[in-house]
Amino acid sequence: MSGGFDYGRLIVRGADRPGIVASVSGALTEHGANILALDQSSSDPEGGRFFQRTVFQLPGLASRIDELDAALEARLGEELGLDFRLVEVRRRKRVGIFVSRADHCLLDLLWRQRRGEIDMTVPMVVANHPDLGDDVRQFGIPFFHVPVARDDRAETEKEQLNLLKGNVDLLVLARYMQILSGDFLDELGVPVINIHHSFLPAFMGANPYQRAKERGVKLVGATAHYVTEQLDEGPIIEQDVIRVSHRESARELRRKGADVERQVLSRAVSWHCDDRVVQDGNTTVVF
Amino acid sequence: MSGGFDYGRLIVRGADRPGIVASVSGALTEHGANILALDQSSSDPEGGRFFQRTVFQLPGLASRIDELDAALEARLGEELGLDFRLVEVRRRKRVGIFVSRADHCLLDLLWRQRRGEIDMTVPMVVANHPDLGDDVRQFGIPFFHVPVARDDRAETEKEQLNLLKGNVDLLVLARYMQILSGDFLDELGVPVINIHHSFLPAFMGANPYQRAKERGVKLVGATAHYVTEQLDEGPIIEQDVIRVSHRESARELRRKGADVERQVLSRAVSWHCDDRVVQDGNTTVVF
Amino acid sequence: MSGGFDYGRLIVRGADRPGIVASVSGALTEHGANILALDQSSSDPEGGRFFQRTVFQLPGLASRIDELDAALEARLGEELGLDFRLVEVRRRKRVGIFVSRADHCLLDLLWRQRRGEIDMTVPMVVANHPDLGDDVRQFGIPFFHVPVARDDRAETEKEQLNLLKGNVDLLVLARYMQILSGDFLDELGVPVINIHHSFLPAFMGANPYQRAKERGVKLVGATAHYVTEQLDEGPIIEQDVIRVSHRESARELRRKGADVERQVLSRAVSWHCDDRVVQDGNTTVVF
Amino acid sequence: MSGGFDYGRLIVRGADRPGIVASVSGALTEHGANILALDQSSSDPEGGRFFQRTVFQLPGLASRIDELDAALEARLGEELGLDFRLVEVRRRKRVGIFVSRADHCLLDLLWRQRRGEIDMTVPMVVANHPDLGDDVRQFGIPFFHVPVARDDRAETEKEQLNLLKGNVDLLVLARYMQILSGDFLDELGVPVINIHHSFLPAFMGANPYQRAKERGVKLVGATAHYVTEQLDEGPIIEQDVIRVSHRESARELRRKGADVERQVLSRAVSWHCDDRVVQDGNTTVVF
Repeated sequence: MSGGFDYGRLIVRGADRPGIVASVSGALTEHGANILALDQSSSDPEGGRFFQRTVFQLPGLASRIDELDAALEARLGEELGLDFRLVEVRRRKRVGIFVSRADHCLLDLLWRQRRGEIDMTVPMVVANHPDLGDDVRQFGIPFFHVPVARDDRAETEKEQLNLLKGNVDLLVLARYMQILSGDFLDELGVPVINIHHSFLPAFMGANPYQRAKERGVKLVGATAHYVTEQLDEGPIIEQDVIRVSHRESARELRRKGADVERQVLSRAVSWHCDDRVVQDGNTTVVF
Repeated sequence: MSGGFDYGRLIVRGADRPGIVASVSGALTEHGANILALDQSSSDPEGGRFFQRTVFQLPGLASRIDELDAALEARLGEELGLDFRLVEVRRRKRVGIFVSRADHCLLDLLWRQRRGEIDMTVPMVVANHPDLGDDVRQFGIPFFHVPVARDDRAETEKEQLNLLKGNVDLLVLARYMQILSGDFLDELGVPVINIHHSFLPAFMGANPYQRAKERGVKLVGATAHYVTEQLDEGPIIEQDVIRVSHRESARELRRKGADVERQVLSRAVSWHCDDRVVQDGNTTVVF
Repeated sequence: MSGGFDYGRLIVRGADRPGIVASVSGALTEHGANILALDQSSSDPEGGRFFQRTVFQLPGLASRIDELDAALEARLGEELGLDFRLVEVRRRKRVGIFVSRADHCLLDLLWRQRRGEIDMTVPMVVANHPDLGDDVRQFGIPFFHVPVARDDRAETEKEQLNLLKGNVDLLVLARYMQILSGDFLDELGVPVINIHHSFLPAFMGANPYQRAKERGVKLVGATAHYVTEQLDEGPIIEQDVIRVSHRESARELRRKGADVERQVLSRAVSWHCDDRVVQDGNTTVVF
Repeated sequence: MSGGFDYGRLIVRGADRPGIVASVSGALTEHGANILALDQSSSDPEGGRFFQRTVFQLPGLASRIDELDAALEARLGEELGLDFRLVEVRRRKRVGIFVSRADHCLLDLLWRQRRGEIDMTVPMVVANHPDLGDDVRQFGIPFFHVPVARDDRAETEKEQLNLLKGNVDLLVLARYMQILSGDFLDELGVPVINIHHSFLPAFMGANPYQRAKERGVKLVGATAHYVTEQLDEGPIIEQDVIRVSHRESARELRRKGADVERQVLSRAVSWHCDDRVVQDGNTTVVF
C-alpha cells in the first residue's frame, strides 16, 4: 500500500458534527488532490468522536505540502475545531527499537523491513544488554549498548534520549524489559509501542506462563499498545491468541507466546507506519 | 447498527476517477443529509473500480427519498456514469429461505432474526421435504412444502416463483440440495445466497468429508456466495474454517462442518441485509 | 464417538511412577476388555501427575462392571494409590441447566442435544426468571421457575437442591446470573460448569464490554470452567475468542461475545459428557 | 519435549486388533523402560488401523537399543504383524533443505532451529539459484548451488543425490520451485516435506493469488504434506489460513500467504522431527 512520490495521507480526528466528511473531502479536492481511499468512522451518531483517514494523490505534493497544511489548518483546525495530521507517503517513518535479550520480536521486525513488508527505516537499535549486537549489525543497522544503571535511571534515560531525539518518529519496545519514566516519554515526544503477553484471565506478577499452566489455560496471547505512564495500560493497537493444551509445558507455552508476540508487534508497527492507527484518549481506531 | 426512521444508505459502484468521493459526499450534504459513516475502496488507483457505502441521516427521509433519488440519478448516474442504490434503513429486507432436510443453517438464521441479530424479516420458508415444518412454524413463519418433481423441474420452479415473486428481496439457500436453473434466477430477479462446505484442497464429487478424512485434512470450512448459473462458483461473501484432527471420524467432520456453515451463512446474510456487500462482476467488496 | 452397549471408559489420575500405563492397560486386558482408545499424559517425567483415559469394549459390561470396579480398586486404588472412575458409555450423563433470562447458551445446548451432538440427557431446566419456559418446553424438557428470594438465599438453594439432588450428574450454569454458595456446591455433590466472558486484559466490575470498547480491545472471548467457591476462578475447560473492531458498538461486542459463549460452553459440556476432561486441583487435562 | 540421553520413542502402526496397546506397553515395560507418554489412536473399532506413539526412558538406551529392537521385532513384528520404528531422542534428525529464491520459509526454519524450537540439525541447504547463499552461511550452515539443467534433469538430480545420500533423514522443500522425479524420491529413500499455498476453493494454474483476488476470496492458506510422485497430492501434515479482505491487493495476499506458509511448514517439520507424524497410505495421524 506504499504509493509513489505524490501520495499523501490526511488523518483527521475530533468532535463529530454534520457535514465533516464532505468538508474534509472538499478541502482536499479544491486543492487539486485526487482521493484514492477514504475511511471514516464515528463513535456515535450523536455527540460522538469523528475519525477519517484519506489517501490522496497531488502532483508536486513535496513542494505544495506547506501550502496545503496551512489551508487545512484554516479550514479544519480553526473553522471546524478538528485535529489533523498531513503526511507524505514517501517519507518513511524512522523507527528506533529498544531490546533486552530476547530476539524474536526484533528479528521479525528487521526481517520484514528488509523484505519491504513494513514501510519504515530503522536508524538504530538500543539495548541494555550487548547480546544482540551481531544480529542487528548483520542487517546493516547501528546497535548501541546502553546498560541500565540500577541506581541512576535518570542517567540511563538521558543517554537513551541523546541517541533518539530528532532521529526517530516512533520508538518500539521489542521485549525491552525496563520501565520508562513519564519524563522520558514527555521528553522523547514521539509515540512508543510496547508488546506484552496476554492471558484470559490475566495473570499478574512473575512467571505468568507457569501460572497460566497451573490454571489450565487454553489460549495464550499478546497485546501491542501505545505506552503511557501506566505500564501495560495504554490504548490497544492489536491482539491475537494461539491455542495451547495440557500437553505443553510452561516452557512451550512461552515459545508459543513468543510466536504470537512477534506477529502482533509486527502488525501493530506496520499499521502505525501506514498511519492506519488513530489514537484517541485511551482507545484506538485502526483503519 | 440498525438506526432509526430517518436513516438511509447509499451504495455507489463504478469506474474510478478523481473526485468521486467528494462528489458523492457533496451530493448528499447539499440535500441536507448528515453523513454518519462512509467506507470507500478503489481496486486500483489507475483505471480501477470505485466502491462507496455511505450511511446518512436525513430528516423526513421517507417523504423525500424519491426526490433524493432523482437528484442522485442526475449527478451520479448521468454525469459520472456510476451505478448507485439508495436504501431506507427502516425497510428491512424480506428474506425467503429454501431448505431441504438439514436444519442447522435454517435454525441459526431464524434464531438470530428473533434475537434481532440479523436485520431482516422472513416472510416464508420453502422446502422440498416436509420435515422442518414444525420447527419453522414455531417461529411464527409460514412454511411451504413444494416437492421437487423429478421429471418436471420447470413446473416446480414455477410453483416456487409464484410464492416468491414480489414477496422477497433476497433468497437464501440454507442447505437446499437442488440446482436452480438460469431461467429461475432471471425470473426471480433478486440476489440469491448459497452456502457450501469448503476444503483445502477441494474435494469434488460425492461424500467430500470422507475423502477429506482419507487425505488427512486438518481444516474444514464453508463458503457463502451469491448464486450464478455456475453452481458453487459465484462471488464469495464470507468464508471460515475450523480445525479437525485424525481423532475425528468423517461423521464428526461433517458436524464441525455444519457448525462453520451456519456461522458463515448467518454472517453473509446479515452483511447483505445491512447493504455491506457490494457485488461487482465475479468479486465482492464487503464493507 | 458414542459407542454401543458394551463400551466403557476408565479415567485414572494420580502421582506418576514407572509402569503405570502398562499396569492400567494390563488390568483391563486381563479382565477381557479390548482397549479401543487410550490417551495418557504426565505433567512432568519426574514427580509429576499422571492422567489416563481409556475407552474399551467388554462383552457383558453392564453385568460385570461391579466385579471390574472391585478388581480395579484392588489393583489401581490400593496397590498404586491412584484415583479412578469407571463409566458405562451407554449411561448418558444427566445434565441440569440453570438459566436467568439470556437464551443463547441454553438454546445452543438443547439444540445440540436434540441433534445428537452432545451425548447427554437434560432432565430439567431451572430458572430464576419465567421468560424461557416456552422455549424449553418446546424441546419436551421440564422447566422449573425458582425465583431468587433476595433476603433468603438459603431457602432458594434448598428448593433448587430438592429439584436437583439425585437427578443430575452435572449442573450447567448457562448464563445464570446468581452466585451459588459453597454449601450448595457441597450438598449438590456433582460437578458444576460455568461460562463467562473473557477479555485480554481482564475488565472487572459492571459492563465489561463498554470498558473493553473504551480501551480499544480487538478480541472478545469466553471461558468455560468448573465452579469452585471462588466465582470465575475454577479450573478452565475451554476458551475461545472472536475478533472485533472499532466499528462495533459495545452492544455489538456483547453479541459477538454471546456467540463465543455458546460455542465454548457447548464444547465444554460435550467434552465433560464424554469424560474427556480430567480435573486435578486447579487445572484440567482435556483429552 | 526434547528429553535426555536415555529417552526413546516407539512408533507403531498396523491392523488393529484387541490387546495391542497392552502388548506394546508390556513389551517396553518388560525390558525395563518407563513409559512417559503414550498416544494411541484407532481409525475404526472394527477392522481399522492402529497407531501408537510412546515416549519412554530406559537407562543405558544407547547400548541396549539393538537388543530392544530385536525383541520388539519378534513381539510386534513377527507375532502381531505390526510396523514399528524405534528412535533415540538424542539423535536429532538431519534435515536437508531445498530452496529457490524465496527466503521466508527457509529463514523461519533456520531461525527456529537456532532458538532450539525445532529439534533438528541442518547439514546443508541446496538451491537452484545462488541468491540465498549469504543468508544461509550466516547461520554456519553449508550452502550448495546446484543449477537446474533444463535439458537434463536427471543430471541435476544425480548431483543433488550425491550431496544428500546418507547425510539427511528428511528433505524439506522450502518453496523449491522444481518438480522432483519419482526416481529421485525412490533413490533418496527418506521422507520429503513440501509446502504450498491453499485456497478455498482451489485455484489451479499460474498466479493463483490474482485469481483468488478476482473471486473475492476471504481466506488464504497453506498446506504442508509429504511428497509423493503426484505433486501437491501427498498426505497432509498441517494446514492453516489467514483472513484477507478486498482492501488487499494480490501482492498483499501473497505476503499474507507467505506468513502462513512459513508457520505451517515450521510446525510440520517440528512435528516430524519429534516423530509425532505417522504416515499411513495417503493419510496422516499427528499426535
